[in-house]
Amino acid sequence: MGDTRPIGVFDSGLGGLTVAKEIFRLMPWERIIYLGDTARVPYGGKSEETIRRFGLQDARTLLDLNVKMLIVACNTVSSVAIDYLERHIKDVPVIGVVLPGARAAATRSAEKRIGVIGTAATVRSGAYAKAINSIDPSIKVYGKPCPLFVPLVEEGMIDNDITRLAVQHYLYEMVDLGIDTLILGCTHYPILMEVIQSTVGNRIQLVDSALWTAKEAQHIMKATGTEYPAAQSHSKSMEQQERQAAVKRAAGQFSADNSEGVAASRFLVSDVTPNFESVAETLLGAGLPSIEKVSVEELEEKEV
Amino acid sequence: MGDTRPIGVFDSGLGGLTVAKEIFRLMPWERIIYLGDTARVPYGGKSEETIRRFGLQDARTLLDLNVKMLIVACNTVSSVAIDYLERHIKDVPVIGVVLPGARAAATRSAEKRIGVIGTAATVRSGAYAKAINSIDPSIKVYGKPCPLFVPLVEEGMIDNDITRLAVQHYLYEMVDLGIDTLILGCTHYPILMEVIQSTVGNRIQLVDSALWTAKEAQHIMKATGTEYPAAQSHSKSMEQQERQAAVKRAAGQFSADNSEGVAASRFLVSDVTPNFESVAETLLGAGLPSIEKVSVEELEEKEV
Repeated sequence: MGDTRPIGVFDSGLGGLTVAKEIFRLMPWERIIYLGDTARVPYGGKSEETIRRFGLQDARTLLDLNVKMLIVACNTVSSVAIDYLERHIKDVPVIGVVLPGARAAATRSAEKRIGVIGTAATVRSGAYAKAINSIDPSIKVYGKPCPLFVPLVEEGMIDNDITRLAVQHYLYEMVDLGIDTLILGCTHYPILMEVIQSTVGNRIQLVDSALWTAKEAQHIMKATGTEYPAAQSHSKSMEQQERQAAVKRAAGQFSADNSEGVAASRFLVSDVTPNFESVAETLLGAGLPSIEKVSVEELEEKEV
Repeated sequence: MGDTRPIGVFDSGLGGLTVAKEIFRLMPWERIIYLGDTARVPYGGKSEETIRRFGLQDARTLLDLNVKMLIVACNTVSSVAIDYLERHIKDVPVIGVVLPGARAAATRSAEKRIGVIGTAATVRSGAYAKAINSIDPSIKVYGKPCPLFVPLVEEGMIDNDITRLAVQHYLYEMVDLGIDTLILGCTHYPILMEVIQSTVGNRIQLVDSALWTAKEAQHIMKATGTEYPAAQSHSKSMEQQERQAAVKRAAGQFSADNSEGVAASRFLVSDVTPNFESVAETLLGAGLPSIEKVSVEELEEKEV
């Protein structure tokens, strides 16, 4: 039993590589086809209509490549268009990053006050608040768009004065509002985890949607018997592997298992942007083996 | 004599409205059709191939609307693809923002040391340096990409601590190199003129490509007799108008002539983005009367 097909993961750009990274870490035996719409990135400031249209084009590009599952690693598309995608895609499970992140936050917030940061579109959609309140209506959710965080990460300004000021600028209100949990509702934001944590203080717990989305994907594949066949034998030694990986992480090394997953996977982009190598390395924690250029726009004709 | 057709102006997004603003100020009788490719903005981090393709799609969208001249208000497209566009477009004059800005800077730099700031693609292309050195090969040109400036302007952070730190971060090297002239090689940057000037000091002269591009357009239309027919009668009273406009500007009011030009013009976008109103007002100095949504992607089929 099992399913040898790859998992499809897409994002507006390279940010979704933080989700791919967690999948490689959690399920080193799985193969991924990653698609980044780098020709049209970012989606966060665009209209809902355009986000839906672009999201469906991205999804169909991956479905044409015979993936067994679709992970919408883009918070903006997950927030605005997940229902739309689910209506149009019936053949494989579709997982967004919002629900897993919202669930993790809802079970962690003792004070029942959660902050959500993301793009303008993600925050405006209220998708995280809706998901959290469907679990517990008494939780207060505060959203704040942080449009400077993505360009800061892509500029490699991970921890300097400008980044620190920007974090203060966006987050001081939320700290004042007494949140105890903060959802990093954009795939780029985990890269800023340390500077965010040191700015908001240790009383506030950060929730990384990327990690919980990878766990959700594993859960669904286990339940439907669609893990990669090697998963079972791997699983036996998982505890041991996890211990090894922890040692490597502590030593600042990228897990060998992850490199294996990376090497067996494919990375598609709609534009080979000049700085993709450095950005990808920041986000994935490893260099990309090779990338392939695809057109996502030409799929437009298929839409009704 | 004269030509009643509108002037076509395009940019990757709304930044080119700073060029439209200078046209309205200089030639209040002219009509503009402005196109902003807001669905795919920004172009500055994309590959040359994609920038050329998008630029030609934008240009053709305007040519289909019967414009008498094409102004490439986008520094990135002007830097990377102006020759490509000129090869493909034979019917109307094509003007980029690079050459007018380069000329103005070359004649102003006494120390023969000019700085150029813009997107990554603009600076990497070396287009400003090439244009400047074709006028005077002894001028030293220093380029610096400033990817944070556009998001800062679009966030409305025109003059705060974060913006000031970012300006220092990007420009301190150039100041040390002894430039006496700095080209604002991106349509968003004139909005940051004051904070840039106060950071680099008054010894350094700022050159706004938008202004010099509008002058170049006027020069060409005069030479080819394609000004709007009303231009002649307007011209008689131009000195008087200019005096009135100066008084209004000093009083912080937008010129009545400009509002007239804005009202008679059309503004096309490929996506009606949620924040376009506030961004447009920042860049144009006036609200947009109305916008029309167009598709620029579907023109792809026409390309060879």
